[in-house]
Amino acid sequence: MEELLKFAPRPTGAGEMFQLMRDGAPRTRTALVQVTGHSRSTVAARLDSLVATGLIAPAGEATSTGGRPPSTYAFNPDARVILGVDLGATHARLAVTDLASTVLAELDAPLAIADGPDRVLDWVAENGEKLVASAGRPLADLAGVGVGLPGPVDHANGRPVNPPIMPGWDGVDVPHALEGRLGAQVLVDNDVNIMALGEHRISYPAERDLLFVKVATGIGAGIIMDGALRRGAQGAAGDLGHVAVPHATDIPCRCGNTGCLEAVAGGHALAAALRTLGTQVGTSADVVALVRAGDVPATQAVRQAGRDIGAVLAASVSLLNPARIVIGGVLAEAGEHLIAGIRETVYQRSLPLATQHLRIMTATTGARAGVLGAGVMVIDQLLSAASVDALVERTLQEDA
Amino acid sequence: MEELLKFAPRPTGAGEMFQLMRDGAPRTRTALVQVTGHSRSTVAARLDSLVATGLIAPAGEATSTGGRPPSTYAFNPDARVILGVDLGATHARLAVTDLASTVLAELDAPLAIADGPDRVLDWVAENGEKLVASAGRPLADLAGVGVGLPGPVDHANGRPVNPPIMPGWDGVDVPHALEGRLGAQVLVDNDVNIMALGEHRISYPAERDLLFVKVATGIGAGIIMDGALRRGAQGAAGDLGHVAVPHATDIPCRCGNTGCLEAVAGGHALAAALRTLGTQVGTSADVVALVRAGDVPATQAVRQAGRDIGAVLAASVSLLNPARIVIGGVLAEAGEHLIAGIRETVYQRSLPLATQHLRIMTATTGARAGVLGAGVMVIDQLLSAASVDALVERTLQEDA
Repeated sequence: MEELLKFAPRPTGAGEMFQLMRDGAPRTRTALVQVTGHSRSTVAARLDSLVATGLIAPAGEATSTGGRPPSTYAFNPDARVILGVDLGATHARLAVTDLASTVLAELDAPLAIADGPDRVLDWVAENGEKLVASAGRPLADLAGVGVGLPGPVDHANGRPVNPPIMPGWDGVDVPHALEGRLGAQVLVDNDVNIMALGEHRISYPAERDLLFVKVATGIGAGIIMDGALRRGAQGAAGDLGHVAVPHATDIPCRCGNTGCLEAVAGGHALAAALRTLGTQVGTSADVVALVRAGDVPATQAVRQAGRDIGAVLAASVSLLNPARIVIGGVLAEAGEHLIAGIRETVYQRSLPLATQHLRIMTATTGARAGVLGAGVMVIDQLLSAASVDALVERTLQEDA
Repeated sequence: MEELLKFAPRPTGAGEMFQLMRDGAPRTRTALVQVTGHSRSTVAARLDSLVATGLIAPAGEATSTGGRPPSTYAFNPDARVILGVDLGATHARLAVTDLASTVLAELDAPLAIADGPDRVLDWVAENGEKLVASAGRPLADLAGVGVGLPGPVDHANGRPVNPPIMPGWDGVDVPHALEGRLGAQVLVDNDVNIMALGEHRISYPAERDLLFVKVATGIGAGIIMDGALRRGAQGAAGDLGHVAVPHATDIPCRCGNTGCLEAVAGGHALAAALRTLGTQVGTSADVVALVRAGDVPATQAVRQAGRDIGAVLAASVSLLNPARIVIGGVLAEAGEHLIAGIRETVYQRSLPLATQHLRIMTATTGARAGVLGAGVMVIDQLLSAASVDALVERTLQEDA
């Protein structure tokens, strides 16, 4: 080993230099020497090893200041592809992206999570493989798979933990089931966390402290603090659905407590409340359609749900002090009424220091947040300094 | 510069190697080569440069496996000293520690923060300088000063932001005022954040997700997630005092809202409630003394305060999913009654996934949490890889 390394460029450090180049800007060797503080020979060796992996590629010539123009190098997001998988209660969304989250091929189809892990993961593997092909890439180009599930997940091992709406899934080794079929590493998290990752990276990459809130049948949050997703000790952080809404103490919840946010302001609660008023309404999407059609009781119910969600978010603002709250999920599509209700209580119930620069808005990635975030989760892992160092080492050994 | 570096060992990378050695264990050159993956000559050069700064020192000989026993090297926490400063409403605590938070000299004295920044900071500089001397060290050994203040602080620039109980302090450049007198860099944060840092590092350094809650006249929290203090966008994270307590909606708070946790369960609220029952009581410490003496109304009031705090912490547990909640501040000294009330509502109102491994306990660092944490804040900054690299570079230039 010691012998081998004398002849090969040292891989350690290439991954670190790669982090500087992830922004995609072309750089000359001289620019990299200046920004890293390393010697010209170290930079040249690291650049060569990164070019060998395909992650960095020549990017043309820089403008010359006299003499032969120097070559530039840049991140090549096309080197590999990623499969993002967003599984909901009754639908699945798949996307093949490059390493910069550009969507190359996409599939949206009905799929019942209650069909159980065997049928669902089989469907995902089969359709994932087809989607890579329809993006015009061989399966060998697939570098990783990110999966979002509609329930609690132990992110460290990719297994669901007592998921309430996923019969048969408790403790299932999701990565193992997919890795054999797709030949790439698999990471799993809950749907709200991947939506938070997607919305953060695609829409607000510079924001350090962001709270993403999904409002649908369930209500949950994904927490970005200091630029990264924070999952908590058991990966259960952001579970807002069963936080007590102040003033709403007598409404029973399926969890056995009363006054839970989900029982007061979730999609089922809204639909049930509208039915007692004589409106024919089944799902959260029906509620959204009524609001969009200008139905007054539905609009009032959504605004009140916003106020109730805002009462819980006010506590979250005091605790987390985010710079931005982004509201996603199907009920966010009801337009400004939900956001208006949320703003009303958040600004009333939080302290000025925490709200003076706070912005509250609807998610811009919409239904794509989850599938993009599932991809981001995998890309971040694959392009970390340690992973790139390992890839460099493997590439050099294969070339030797 | 390029010329100079040809003759000096390259400082970049020494700081990174130092991180491995912060645990204090003695290591041979061979062990460092194995763990870093760097060449023997790189390790030797980095070790030499760290020894030149004093941060690493020879630590005797390792056990020989035959032949001359190899020398070992270890972190030398005695290389510099730190001043921790914890300022409360009416008292100050100062401590001089080494770089491993061992207290070398300590001072606890009455000091009114309301005397204003000129008098208070003058007192801190004068007594800090004396305390370094009484620890037997020259002022030149002082590497940094950490300050905790009883109000909101913009940690990035060390200035208080509209602090309610600190007249005259709004926007004051605390680091500038002290740096001139003490000749060392100064970092500032609010008292709850430094208490969280102190309790985390001294008592539970391996815990990744911990919530520290101070219960005194005010109530606030410091958030450790993924091993580091999270301050939020304006440094206001953890501000629990004005979160609404469910079921307690009609109690007015000085902030203008009703039902705030501080107005329901803070030290002033408890003392006021006991006075209406005819008990002579002024401060939070009086309430603690009554509970310790077995006074029934005081005990009941503290247990109810625990339940109300627990109702807000239940929401915090759902949001943050900490592995441990540590209760500090003067009211934590009332013994098990406060904790029992907190546990009662937290375990009732949070979901099983978030509470199954949750532990709730009283802080073990007691009144020292703040002053130790103020030191930890500075030590973490001084011993970061980048700071050590910079120190190595300065040392080499001075030696050249």
